[in-house]
Amino acid sequence: MNAIELIKKKREKRKLSTGEIKFLINNYTKGKIPDYQFSAFLMATFFNGMSVEETAALTEAMLYSGTVINLDSIAGAKVDKHSTGGVGDKTSLILAPIVAAAGVNVPMISGRGLGHTGGTLDKLHPIPGFRTDVNLTQYKNIIKKCGMVLASQTKNIVPADKLMYALRDVTATVESIPLITGSIMSKKLAEGIDGLVLDIKTGSGAFMKELKDAKALAKSLINTAKAFDKKVIGIITDMNQPLGNYIGNWLEVVESIEALQGKDIPDLMTVTHKLSGAMIYLGGKASSIDEGVEISKEMIKNGKAFDKFLEIVKLQKGDTSVITNLSKYPKSKYSEEIIASRTGYLKEIDNYEIGMSALQLGAGRLTKDDIIEPKAGIIFNSKIGDRIKKGDVIATLFTDKKREIDSAKMRIENALKFSSKKVTKPKLIKTILR
Amino acid sequence: MNAIELIKKKREKRKLSTGEIKFLINNYTKGKIPDYQFSAFLMATFFNGMSVEETAALTEAMLYSGTVINLDSIAGAKVDKHSTGGVGDKTSLILAPIVAAAGVNVPMISGRGLGHTGGTLDKLHPIPGFRTDVNLTQYKNIIKKCGMVLASQTKNIVPADKLMYALRDVTATVESIPLITGSIMSKKLAEGIDGLVLDIKTGSGAFMKELKDAKALAKSLINTAKAFDKKVIGIITDMNQPLGNYIGNWLEVVESIEALQGKDIPDLMTVTHKLSGAMIYLGGKASSIDEGVEISKEMIKNGKAFDKFLEIVKLQKGDTSVITNLSKYPKSKYSEEIIASRTGYLKEIDNYEIGMSALQLGAGRLTKDDIIEPKAGIIFNSKIGDRIKKGDVIATLFTDKKREIDSAKMRIENALKFSSKKVTKPKLIKTILR
Repeated sequence: MNAIELIKKKREKRKLSTGEIKFLINNYTKGKIPDYQFSAFLMATFFNGMSVEETAALTEAMLYSGTVINLDSIAGAKVDKHSTGGVGDKTSLILAPIVAAAGVNVPMISGRGLGHTGGTLDKLHPIPGFRTDVNLTQYKNIIKKCGMVLASQTKNIVPADKLMYALRDVTATVESIPLITGSIMSKKLAEGIDGLVLDIKTGSGAFMKELKDAKALAKSLINTAKAFDKKVIGIITDMNQPLGNYIGNWLEVVESIEALQGKDIPDLMTVTHKLSGAMIYLGGKASSIDEGVEISKEMIKNGKAFDKFLEIVKLQKGDTSVITNLSKYPKSKYSEEIIASRTGYLKEIDNYEIGMSALQLGAGRLTKDDIIEPKAGIIFNSKIGDRIKKGDVIATLFTDKKREIDSAKMRIENALKFSSKKVTKPKLIKTILR
Repeated sequence: MNAIELIKKKREKRKLSTGEIKFLINNYTKGKIPDYQFSAFLMATFFNGMSVEETAALTEAMLYSGTVINLDSIAGAKVDKHSTGGVGDKTSLILAPIVAAAGVNVPMISGRGLGHTGGTLDKLHPIPGFRTDVNLTQYKNIIKKCGMVLASQTKNIVPADKLMYALRDVTATVESIPLITGSIMSKKLAEGIDGLVLDIKTGSGAFMKELKDAKALAKSLINTAKAFDKKVIGIITDMNQPLGNYIGNWLEVVESIEALQGKDIPDLMTVTHKLSGAMIYLGGKASSIDEGVEISKEMIKNGKAFDKFLEIVKLQKGDTSVITNLSKYPKSKYSEEIIASRTGYLKEIDNYEIGMSALQLGAGRLTKDDIIEPKAGIIFNSKIGDRIKKGDVIATLFTDKKREIDSAKMRIENALKFSSKKVTKPKLIKTILR
């Protein structure tokens, strides 16, 4: 068996065996297959894809490149959620305490954001003192104490993914369903979960712009989860506009806390409750997703979810005083409003551009070494289908970077399309796959 | 402009501009684009191909990575031939002196063989003293003196090709028509030619097994030659069996000399005369290929081609005494006959296997560091369509490696298929393209 043969085999669309895929991943991880051969393999995979069996073998080889956490010592189901990423997507911060409050363990390991979408880890960072770099013992102890944990990936978790992702990023081989599946599923399986709810975003602000691509990715992820005997539900949700109204790390903490305190943010909470409902159902605490959604809503109403959030912040060394008094947090140096210049219905948002504008203001990173400004971001008041009157505030920009304001503002204005006729709002929950 | 963008563009089958292709090739050659990005680009090119314009831009960028020889100071047309390679393909040794004798300059720069096909350079090597490593001044002077030269590639000729070929070889990206075209045409254009005759082999011993692939390659090569205002003819010839009867470097010198001395070797001389006829025509010394073929035959008959061969051997410091007395050359330690075990018509030859058997006996190299034994090889007496009687000698093997004999013999026996019914001989000249 040698790398050239196996690259050629994939190039010719012949199916690789489990052993062949393990050979490639193991030897690449060990540095025995050079980057230039592996990138040719990645590109051949981009073109020719992988079967369900090949994808499962890829995931398994990646998974066992590092530590696989065993949570058998912790009673009860362990269910996590993964989102393919979007603009304003802060559901993790809200649903993890909801689901933990409902009695299902949530062992959540998150990554940092890159490009137009934020990462959960970046959204926890603004909370002063909050520590996500927990070791394995702490990880287990925190779950035992409060039924959840919000941890960052350590270098021992799926080292193959770090190597592979870095190479994919510079060889235009990111957008491949089997490679995305291996990356996502290996990291989630390493957490020690029994079940997983997948939030597959689709639309202009999503990785998968087209519904058919989102469905294909969902199916690949679901098939792979099943190959590892995990319970799984895939929910395809809309990402044609920001989820909720706040974009930017601290702003999203604020909106999450308000949501946990009972504020009704229709689009954000519809998606969040559907996801947490599915998690509660997979965790065996409800007999259906719908029943799970009812329990989820109840956890907000009875205050248990917010209490759980305060509990996890304390357990992970965070300062709860900014959470109970949001105004304590510093403000951006500059703010700028985008005012509607005419009356009409908001018809379309290029949501990728909204995400990139937030990044430009300081809320995200273009390369992995960029530094994020937690205060920076956008409050985006308008939703597709809204009738906006001349003079209305469409959005407010927050930044410390004065020189970025004009260009970010123009970028957002260019990302919006209006209509004189009524516009139907996009469906939030597109479909549920199992 | 950056490499990732351009890889992605090719991956998405969008056409690259001349500037973009130059950026990739120039920066890769300078070491500014790493192997792992370039191999992803090569694989994307394998899948999505290149337009005529892109292929010409690739060829041009490769060409100008090194020295481009200018032969304007030499009177008369300069025409070369390129073959895509085959088993027993020694036409260069015969046609170069024929064409030079006919008054057309032949500035031939050749490479070494790899795999089942031999390289012209390896076929010159057995002639004691023969020097192919001529410098630019010698190159021009030799052509001026005798109308031809048989030189080896220097490191200044298309350095981009050396780098690219080494990478293609280890990333399963060799079999790509635009990449093959760039590699062949950049090297031929660097010689300083006005015209080029292409011998595109097809069949079991050829790189292009299928006629349609051979035609596609021929068209790509012809279009690229035309983009550089070169006169060009593509001749697709049969490679379903060895060309002539001798395979192996010294053995092919012997057969070439016998051919130059007037021995009739029907298949070898049909192909050789067609190629040299086309070269004479492109060089303006005949009004048609057919007239060129007649002149070519005449050059054998009147002894001028053989004289030219002796002249070039002398000019390039070779010992002509082995040429005029072939029996002076040392013999292989071992020889072994393959005897027909029954009577029948030879129906099919897996010619790749014949080439690989010769390699195994010492006549070729599997990796570029392998050492060739010039004496080693095969005399293959039988042609497809021949009626072979039980007891006939099908082939004779020559080698110094005793332990390879049995396995090479079995390999050849397995490569042959017989029929009890009459078999038609394959057409030697499949088609001529311009």
